[in-house]
Amino acid sequence: MPPSKNAKAAISPTRAEDFPGWFQAVVKDAEVAELAHVRGSMVIRPWGYAIWELMQAELDRAIKATGSHNAYFPLFIPLSYLEAEAGHVDGFAKEMAVVTHHRLEADPENPGHLRPGGELAEPLIVRPTSETIIGKSFAKWINSYRDLPLMINQWANVVRWEMRPRVLLRTTEFLWQEGHTAHADEGEAREEMERMLDVYREFAEGFLAMPVVTGEKSAEERFPGAVTTLSIEAMMQDGKALQAGTSHYLGTSFAEAAEIEFSDREGGRQLVHTTSWGVSTRLLGALIMSHSDDDGLRLPPSVAPSQVVIVPILRGDAAPEVAAAAEELASELRGRSFGGAPVRVTVDGRDRGPADRRWEWVKKGVPVVIELGPRDLESGELAVRRRTALEGKPESVGREEFVAGVEGVLTEIQRGYFDTAAARLESRTARDITDLEDFRRWFEGDEGDSTMGGFVRAPWSEAPESLPILEELKASVRCLPLDQQLPPGSTCVLTGKPAVVEAVFGKAY
Amino acid sequence: MPPSKNAKAAISPTRAEDFPGWFQAVVKDAEVAELAHVRGSMVIRPWGYAIWELMQAELDRAIKATGSHNAYFPLFIPLSYLEAEAGHVDGFAKEMAVVTHHRLEADPENPGHLRPGGELAEPLIVRPTSETIIGKSFAKWINSYRDLPLMINQWANVVRWEMRPRVLLRTTEFLWQEGHTAHADEGEAREEMERMLDVYREFAEGFLAMPVVTGEKSAEERFPGAVTTLSIEAMMQDGKALQAGTSHYLGTSFAEAAEIEFSDREGGRQLVHTTSWGVSTRLLGALIMSHSDDDGLRLPPSVAPSQVVIVPILRGDAAPEVAAAAEELASELRGRSFGGAPVRVTVDGRDRGPADRRWEWVKKGVPVVIELGPRDLESGELAVRRRTALEGKPESVGREEFVAGVEGVLTEIQRGYFDTAAARLESRTARDITDLEDFRRWFEGDEGDSTMGGFVRAPWSEAPESLPILEELKASVRCLPLDQQLPPGSTCVLTGKPAVVEAVFGKAY
Repeated sequence: MPPSKNAKAAISPTRAEDFPGWFQAVVKDAEVAELAHVRGSMVIRPWGYAIWELMQAELDRAIKATGSHNAYFPLFIPLSYLEAEAGHVDGFAKEMAVVTHHRLEADPENPGHLRPGGELAEPLIVRPTSETIIGKSFAKWINSYRDLPLMINQWANVVRWEMRPRVLLRTTEFLWQEGHTAHADEGEAREEMERMLDVYREFAEGFLAMPVVTGEKSAEERFPGAVTTLSIEAMMQDGKALQAGTSHYLGTSFAEAAEIEFSDREGGRQLVHTTSWGVSTRLLGALIMSHSDDDGLRLPPSVAPSQVVIVPILRGDAAPEVAAAAEELASELRGRSFGGAPVRVTVDGRDRGPADRRWEWVKKGVPVVIELGPRDLESGELAVRRRTALEGKPESVGREEFVAGVEGVLTEIQRGYFDTAAARLESRTARDITDLEDFRRWFEGDEGDSTMGGFVRAPWSEAPESLPILEELKASVRCLPLDQQLPPGSTCVLTGKPAVVEAVFGKAY
Repeated sequence: MPPSKNAKAAISPTRAEDFPGWFQAVVKDAEVAELAHVRGSMVIRPWGYAIWELMQAELDRAIKATGSHNAYFPLFIPLSYLEAEAGHVDGFAKEMAVVTHHRLEADPENPGHLRPGGELAEPLIVRPTSETIIGKSFAKWINSYRDLPLMINQWANVVRWEMRPRVLLRTTEFLWQEGHTAHADEGEAREEMERMLDVYREFAEGFLAMPVVTGEKSAEERFPGAVTTLSIEAMMQDGKALQAGTSHYLGTSFAEAAEIEFSDREGGRQLVHTTSWGVSTRLLGALIMSHSDDDGLRLPPSVAPSQVVIVPILRGDAAPEVAAAAEELASELRGRSFGGAPVRVTVDGRDRGPADRRWEWVKKGVPVVIELGPRDLESGELAVRRRTALEGKPESVGREEFVAGVEGVLTEIQRGYFDTAAARLESRTARDITDLEDFRRWFEGDEGDSTMGGFVRAPWSEAPESLPILEELKASVRCLPLDQQLPPGSTCVLTGKPAVVEAVFGKAY
């Protein structure tokens, strides 16, 4: 169903009509993922998973470059481990999947049905995160200062029971990486926390073309048990914030709970200082809400499983010649590189109309689609359609020129996505709101209108009475930005009290 | 603890003393993996996980080259899905982890403790394999012959409750890939099953240097519900078989259970024919039991996270010069390639004695270790120690010669591991056993002696009365080899009845 020029968009509803509905439709139509089988669980379909794999590969390379090593820890955590943690963590999250039996047996009361059997002496928890279990391993592996720092990363699935699931954004099971490191002192641990935030920022901005605000979480938004939580916050097209990665300095409290001690150079026993940091498949949601439009997904070339798709028009006598020309063009393009790897090219010669095929790739966000027919072979020109320019006719580019310049084209598209998102972040961050009235207007005015609202960057007192105001407006302190710009003598935008810090306020996913 | 020449081995017990004990000691000393935290669960440590990642990368490339796409499906399977499957599968395995609650709450009867809360209406099973859930998705995605073949692969953790766990070989949770494909007809599905067995064979032999026997499973050893199961069987150093990968043709029975139908070209509705195929972290165990020796792990270069380790001797005034020379040598070696990728080189400049450092890498199985001291800088010679030649002095090789020839050295080591294992498989496969008496002697003689026993390749009647004999000897039909060599008129080695097939018999892990 290709919309003609100026026709309605391919995705229904549009962003302006219903932003959350639009998001779901894009995810579905592009075959990225779907909620299925078990309430809150998600199938990540091949196109979505291929995007995730590209993200993983890049981030994995960056994580390893910092000196961390990958490992794998058990899915199941003994209840007793969490009891130890619950004791020292106030905000201990309780929605978790609990394994109580290790067998399925025929149900004698209900023929043809199965029931749980073999009750476990100690229930097991499906990991919501692996601090406790990795901490216990660290305690075993770390003896002396020579064993430090110990820097481990794990790619894994985790489970947190979700009462109101949303595909990619809030699912009971999701995929992530979780880094866990142990250091001899606070300074080194804090350095690690900051280094990893920087890895995430670079990854978000350079690879996902998604500009972010880096900052520290306020006490209320901090990871339970952490001394300091840093995050990267991205702004979606509806002006809402999406926390896209976090990095924590945990002090010695987790080390104390897991008894991770080492002998220092003088032979004394000390607790290690730990950090943890992670990003998840939520990033797929962030990517989509950052760049996509009313015709579907839009992918920065770096995360596009196919960067160029060639759709040969295979009709009549010329079909074999066109098919061969498509393969040859693909092969030449694969000989060029983007981002240090061969350009990813797909030839889609399926037995369907060319317009249908082209629109499938448009909705899947492919950066460049080329329809190739007998006339193009004669003229030596290519009909090049960038995902960022669907209106009007495709661009006509000389074949050799396109092949030679494909890296430049992809680079330009990648930069274009970043620039657009950066301009939005800038234009929809209010820096001139100084009192509660304007603050209210900002966050009330955007109700149901995805083109309004955004972030407010303003002085804050950290006073407890500011929190109910935020709650009422469904807003929160997203972070205390690392590049603090607090003029002396500022007053809190919420309470009028003396400000102690500059904060970024926003509504959040 | 470097053993001196002719001294006792680094690993205790040795293979001859206690093969299973030796295996555990190698896995532990090389820091590959350990059973920990939850009975039957395993931590895969960084060195082991790095080996697994190399396996994954190679196998993933080969799987994608066949046209399969990766995706991700939920960890939890509704009980009802398994009830549907249990109905049509006789050998339905019942040891599974069952999630019955979605919350942890304070236990009022036991202050300071937590207990399960929020009982689920329908229990969830932690996937032991994903046929049912992937089948249900296939049913949704497949409508017409145009949607076929649908070829999906998943890298995931799975859980099968183990009463007698053994590290890497039998663990409650393990990592694997599972391929699931749907085809329009039996011929195409069988072709896929055979193609994937061939991918596994090539991977085992070419990458893991582990020769295998390819064959079909007998009815007793077939995957429950499968029409045909093919496997690759490797022989460990104790003569036992380890099933290293399986590929199944499932007919239409799984399609029937999950209702996967398509409209064919004539508009009729038909059931798809499905396959599934997988290999797991068990391969790490197979790799170790194939190649390692009484000094620890031995890794074929293809799966060695470090292929060359340089141990600089950093004493006195020359230390900075030696350190610089080590880095320069590493950098030159990284400029060379093996198996199409840069040579993986580690410089181990840790503050420990050079012999201790060297022995750590020996036990971790690194193919080549070079100790580098001031004298080597003067002479321009390198002291090269291959993992396959620990006895006596290291080989003295000119620096430039070694750098230029490193690919050849690694290729030779890789081939050497394969040749050694292939010679063992050949010499410990009896092809001349024709009666039950010799058969008994073969399988009784190896009790507790890892240097005896192995496979018997002989004619078989498939008669039911042969099974108790095998059971008594703790042996089984490993496979019916694909290259059948059954002379006409052969009689069954177990029963004396007319033979219908040639079989490979062995004891198995």
